[in-house]
Amino acid sequence: MSREYDKNELIHPGERLDDLQTGGYYLIQDPSRFCFGIDAVLLSSFARVKRGEKALDLGTGTGVIPILLESKNQGAFYGGLEIQEASADMARRSVQYNDLEQKIEIKTGDIKEAAALYGAASFEVITVNPPYMIGEHGLKNDNEAKYIARHEVYCTLRDVVEQSAKLLKDKGRFYMVHRPFRLPEIMCEMCRAKLEPKRMRLVYSRVDKEPSMVLIEGMKNGRPRMQVEAPLIVYEQDGSYTEEVLAMYGDMKKSREER
Amino acid sequence: MSREYDKNELIHPGERLDDLQTGGYYLIQDPSRFCFGIDAVLLSSFARVKRGEKALDLGTGTGVIPILLESKNQGAFYGGLEIQEASADMARRSVQYNDLEQKIEIKTGDIKEAAALYGAASFEVITVNPPYMIGEHGLKNDNEAKYIARHEVYCTLRDVVEQSAKLLKDKGRFYMVHRPFRLPEIMCEMCRAKLEPKRMRLVYSRVDKEPSMVLIEGMKNGRPRMQVEAPLIVYEQDGSYTEEVLAMYGDMKKSREER
Repeated sequence: MSREYDKNELIHPGERLDDLQTGGYYLIQDPSRFCFGIDAVLLSSFARVKRGEKALDLGTGTGVIPILLESKNQGAFYGGLEIQEASADMARRSVQYNDLEQKIEIKTGDIKEAAALYGAASFEVITVNPPYMIGEHGLKNDNEAKYIARHEVYCTLRDVVEQSAKLLKDKGRFYMVHRPFRLPEIMCEMCRAKLEPKRMRLVYSRVDKEPSMVLIEGMKNGRPRMQVEAPLIVYEQDGSYTEEVLAMYGDMKKSREER
Repeated sequence: MSREYDKNELIHPGERLDDLQTGGYYLIQDPSRFCFGIDAVLLSSFARVKRGEKALDLGTGTGVIPILLESKNQGAFYGGLEIQEASADMARRSVQYNDLEQKIEIKTGDIKEAAALYGAASFEVITVNPPYMIGEHGLKNDNEAKYIARHEVYCTLRDVVEQSAKLLKDKGRFYMVHRPFRLPEIMCEMCRAKLEPKRMRLVYSRVDKEPSMVLIEGMKNGRPRMQVEAPLIVYEQDGSYTEEVLAMYGDMKKSREER
């Protein structure tokens, strides 16, 4: 039985294999469930994992963030925690497909119990692309997987921030992508949990529009003083990507070609 | 004795008279003390005072913000509170010079006692361009007036926010200009005082630079949800003002010409 044949068995009916254009890696996704968006790409470019560090991605979904981080950083270990077993299973198969079992481990579990599961103060880096919307309307039957990924059904912003603070070592870094309309709550929860906001970047589709996303870095027990970076503009006026966003994808391409 | 002659007596030796280019108003300033900057212009364009409302400017200095607000809004009354008697005196003379005694009143006093001085829940609008820097280095002898205006010598951010919350009526609006590096503290203090952040705009010298100022609007007892507006860019690449900033000055010019 050839190795290639084994790998194709990892892709189940209805799923597709997407080229991540970085590190030669691929990702298994099910378009009927939830596919990663530009937020994951931006977060994995915004976050830094230094040589030898351990990173954990909360609510990892199909595992795209640990896989992208592994391709661009020199960390020792990347964890991913996902409450939906079907997504976690897909993530595990992507890890296998890319021969990353030694670097990436996906667990099925609840963010609210993450510190108990992994142990307090056990990571230098936490990343999270949490549900953006306050889940006040209950489960929608038509697409539960997407609804859970987008709405605070299983965990609130406070849960995410509190668990991250517990999981991080002293001076560890927290990286999150979220919606700007929740910034006051984000900052208050971070300060409350002693994850001091240290760096923020707003993401604008176009320079004359309101921002659609915010990238934020916090430091466990950090001192107050936040750097607000230059705007990250996604599109030119003609609808093409800006040079900066192209460079994010370009770096991915480059690291693949160098293999 | 002509009226013009009286007015010129309002300007003391060493002081100068600046054309505010709005409402036909002028401002008396002493360049050896503290002259207003673009932050005051931006704040007075960001803030809104509706017909019949009462507004108070905390730490008003030479009174530039109440005078600019009066020229651009239909409020019933504009107060200004200033702890430095020399500045408050200059502000009062500017009010006289512009024949605004019926609309603007300048008091000498301490921000920390503002609610006691004016009474709780007595304004629909508070504006403040507070000291930006944490005053950890004590008074500088070489220019005490400037140092007090720029450093938290007499009041902290918490004092400003707490007093504003007391002074405002339910659903009243709080407008502040500050430095982005203190945003987490600003938002936490606002939330703590129930001045919910509702609108924020970052001010960038140039589009590819980090922001130099932040304009923020809060609402007393407002519901959580903040609008982050498009970036406010001050300069074109060639160093001239952008159209938007020119328009702020242009509107001023226009309102003057219409007189």
